[in-house]
Amino acid sequence: MIELKSYLHGEWVSPQTTALLVSPTTEEAIARVSADRPSLQTALDFGRKVGGPALRSLSFEQRGAMLKVLSKAIHTHREELIELSLTTGGTTRSDGKFDIDGASGTMAYYAALGTKMGATNSIVEPSEQLTQDPRFHGQHAWLPRHGVALHVNAFNFPAWGMGGKLAVALLAGVPVITKPATSTCPLAFRIAEILIATGVMPRGAFQFVAGSAGDLVDQLGPQDLLAFTGSADTAAKLRSAKSVVSRSTRVNIEADSLNSAVLAEGVSAGDDVYRTFLRDVVKEMTQKTGQKCTATRRIFVPRAMMEQVIEDLSAELSRIKVGNPANEEVRMGPLATKQQQTDFLAGLETLKASGAKVAFQHALSLVDVPAGKGFFVPPTLLRADDAGSANAVHTHEVFGPSATVCAYDSTDECIALVERGEGGLVCTIYGEDREVLRTLLLGIAPFHGRVLVVSAKVADKTIQPGLVLPSCVHGGPGRAGGGEELGGERGLRFYMQRTALQGDRALLDRFFEASKS
Amino acid sequence: MIELKSYLHGEWVSPQTTALLVSPTTEEAIARVSADRPSLQTALDFGRKVGGPALRSLSFEQRGAMLKVLSKAIHTHREELIELSLTTGGTTRSDGKFDIDGASGTMAYYAALGTKMGATNSIVEPSEQLTQDPRFHGQHAWLPRHGVALHVNAFNFPAWGMGGKLAVALLAGVPVITKPATSTCPLAFRIAEILIATGVMPRGAFQFVAGSAGDLVDQLGPQDLLAFTGSADTAAKLRSAKSVVSRSTRVNIEADSLNSAVLAEGVSAGDDVYRTFLRDVVKEMTQKTGQKCTATRRIFVPRAMMEQVIEDLSAELSRIKVGNPANEEVRMGPLATKQQQTDFLAGLETLKASGAKVAFQHALSLVDVPAGKGFFVPPTLLRADDAGSANAVHTHEVFGPSATVCAYDSTDECIALVERGEGGLVCTIYGEDREVLRTLLLGIAPFHGRVLVVSAKVADKTIQPGLVLPSCVHGGPGRAGGGEELGGERGLRFYMQRTALQGDRALLDRFFEASKS
Repeated sequence: MIELKSYLHGEWVSPQTTALLVSPTTEEAIARVSADRPSLQTALDFGRKVGGPALRSLSFEQRGAMLKVLSKAIHTHREELIELSLTTGGTTRSDGKFDIDGASGTMAYYAALGTKMGATNSIVEPSEQLTQDPRFHGQHAWLPRHGVALHVNAFNFPAWGMGGKLAVALLAGVPVITKPATSTCPLAFRIAEILIATGVMPRGAFQFVAGSAGDLVDQLGPQDLLAFTGSADTAAKLRSAKSVVSRSTRVNIEADSLNSAVLAEGVSAGDDVYRTFLRDVVKEMTQKTGQKCTATRRIFVPRAMMEQVIEDLSAELSRIKVGNPANEEVRMGPLATKQQQTDFLAGLETLKASGAKVAFQHALSLVDVPAGKGFFVPPTLLRADDAGSANAVHTHEVFGPSATVCAYDSTDECIALVERGEGGLVCTIYGEDREVLRTLLLGIAPFHGRVLVVSAKVADKTIQPGLVLPSCVHGGPGRAGGGEELGGERGLRFYMQRTALQGDRALLDRFFEASKS
Repeated sequence: MIELKSYLHGEWVSPQTTALLVSPTTEEAIARVSADRPSLQTALDFGRKVGGPALRSLSFEQRGAMLKVLSKAIHTHREELIELSLTTGGTTRSDGKFDIDGASGTMAYYAALGTKMGATNSIVEPSEQLTQDPRFHGQHAWLPRHGVALHVNAFNFPAWGMGGKLAVALLAGVPVITKPATSTCPLAFRIAEILIATGVMPRGAFQFVAGSAGDLVDQLGPQDLLAFTGSADTAAKLRSAKSVVSRSTRVNIEADSLNSAVLAEGVSAGDDVYRTFLRDVVKEMTQKTGQKCTATRRIFVPRAMMEQVIEDLSAELSRIKVGNPANEEVRMGPLATKQQQTDFLAGLETLKASGAKVAFQHALSLVDVPAGKGFFVPPTLLRADDAGSANAVHTHEVFGPSATVCAYDSTDECIALVERGEGGLVCTIYGEDREVLRTLLLGIAPFHGRVLVVSAKVADKTIQPGLVLPSCVHGGPGRAGGGEELGGERGLRFYMQRTALQGDRALLDRFFEASKS
């Protein structure tokens, strides 16, 4: 059985005590992972003192070239990784591709950005005169922080989560310690092996922790960074850490989100926009068994459209085959862990207790699964006819293949209901009428990190709402954690320090000319 | 005696129970301030529901016009305010001007920026194609958050602190509740009266809390903002608040800072740069009795220059007249409170216990002060010949007229010693040699929000290091709180939400064209 090691201060380290990981499909043991709670101060120091200076000595262009090799290495092992995702993570082939191509694609994007940013290692904003004297200037420059980036990733995207964060930090010039979620760690571990085997990363630029993060969070300092994706509960704990509270360790959090799909007033069942709406909702509910931070949880529809929408979604959902993802007919696998299964079923009860009713539940005749095994749950569509009073629908994220159709009576009410989510990652608006779309967009935008507008002219050209493009920021205010990742060059700034430089214009200019060499 | 009221939900509110404030010069009672710990949920709601929509309906240009009136109102009352600062805050006329002109100047700067930003109310970044299809675009837009900005200000700049934060929030379109430090609240209260009397701020756009902030911090929500200037201890408490930890209330903190002045290798006592260095250090040590977040606390000089620097600084410091700021001869007044006096004297002992020695202490024959009265302290210059071992010099901020001269033996050692401050607001480098300046600048920058480089060509043109220009960011990493304020348009973004909008290019363009009307 595979033993998942950590990669610390330049070497692979075996765990002292281990726990077993099981297949979410068959519940057979698949790997041993560390059950230690190690002290990792030396790993932090190694990153800061060895990895940091090495990365900072490279230009964006050179770091980009490194990312290109890393991206290609993942792509070269694509088939092996998809298979591993399937056996250890319970994903379908399609789900596995989504995760693995997400990782290599984001790395390739940042590789290209590095080339574009060129032979420099700072981002310099336009200079401006500060006083009456034309010689005395101010210039805001971004330089890499001298700390380590600790990446704590979620179980649902062991590849993409790790690869995306890694690409941005390395391009910014900051060494990384990455800690994948333990439950889906086998895929992350294999990718770490592949990345390290390329030999292109400087010593100390990348370390990997399988199992507990030990004392890492508490040991972070004023130049370090902590980027977390996961539950709001864990996020609150990290944010209360002494490092964050007392040493201003910079934090980026991506947490719970009650993402919305809004069917605007004025759309009819025959419209292209309506067909895209149905297709997207079904995909967002069931892809990766609904275990996506960007999955749709709330579906807002004009009251007159309620029955039609529920009927159409139910028909689509009933056609989904659930079971062993190794079987090619299967379109949806199990949840990742027993705990996720328990939480999902309890979450449905929470929504029902708050006034939501089951509109459709999948019969769940499992394909190709040993009897009584696997962490399977039925795709479930709920309805909230009095959406304003069903509080849990807007506040409780059920992390699996479920969403609630909410009725609204006016565009203003719809905006108010969307806002009840208190901050989300993404909202998708499907509509025909330009004024309605505009009202929805401007009302909803400040509560989201991303708003996708599906209008008639792009109904057949749009991306799926759950797709995180590296060129657009990913994150959201409030419940979603208040963070921002990716977004092209924007994402680099989390890892860098902006400093206002004041002095002789010619001198400052020359400093940054020279740093381009 | 003046009673300091709060201005909440559109009316002045008297305190139920009060405490006395005393003059820091004579210790006579000067004002009554609230000793209540009120519930201020209704004030928050009033700001969110009444102030927010009103401000958001205005364009940047219109908000700028409002700021212009507010700036002028302060300027019109300048003499009265300087006098009030002198009698209630213990500031000299010059110190009072620095604070009050800082407020009106920053407001005027943001008024002009509003005019420049024009008849729109969002900041839109360049659009970019997201997929193969030229029609499907992404656009990052910044819209004002729908919450309230709670401003918790420090005692040392009752005017500037309040005015600067207010200008940025109002221009961004976000209503403000401002809570000045209680000890120097009389000046902030009078300014609040003046601002409100202009009648130009929409109802709910500005509320003022004299005394305790009550339950405000705990009541903040996911669209609210908290901007704090003050001690690292209070900052840590605010950052642990439930609103921040669990609801992602966005926080900006400006806290302790061991700001440095670095005399680079290669400067001689006869150089212009050296004269500017002496002038700046003396000013930064004694202006506002050293009670500035940007005041110089550590002075790094090549070991060979130690005796010369100490001799020259001591000579300058000994000439400073200390006493009643109402007397025109006086160049330095008392500290603001008895507590500050106690803390300052204890702080000197902390530095001495850590290895620093007193190099110069002012004789302190007070001018025009009732015997035994007032919170006066002597300007004190310490020296650390073994700066590496004097840990407290780099970690303990003594908030008054004191600084420590630290010897260094190489440029690299100097950088390492500066870094020991673990993040600061400002570092000033005085030097002649271009390569030395460059090494210092690039080494030091990531640890600071601002670096001022005083080279030969700008030695007579530079600003004083402690001056916070509205066009440059103010804040710093680590110990300094990790925040960023001001910096022109940059400062507005704290109050706004960036959202990635995706959809039909023509449609998105039209939305933001329309919002310019």
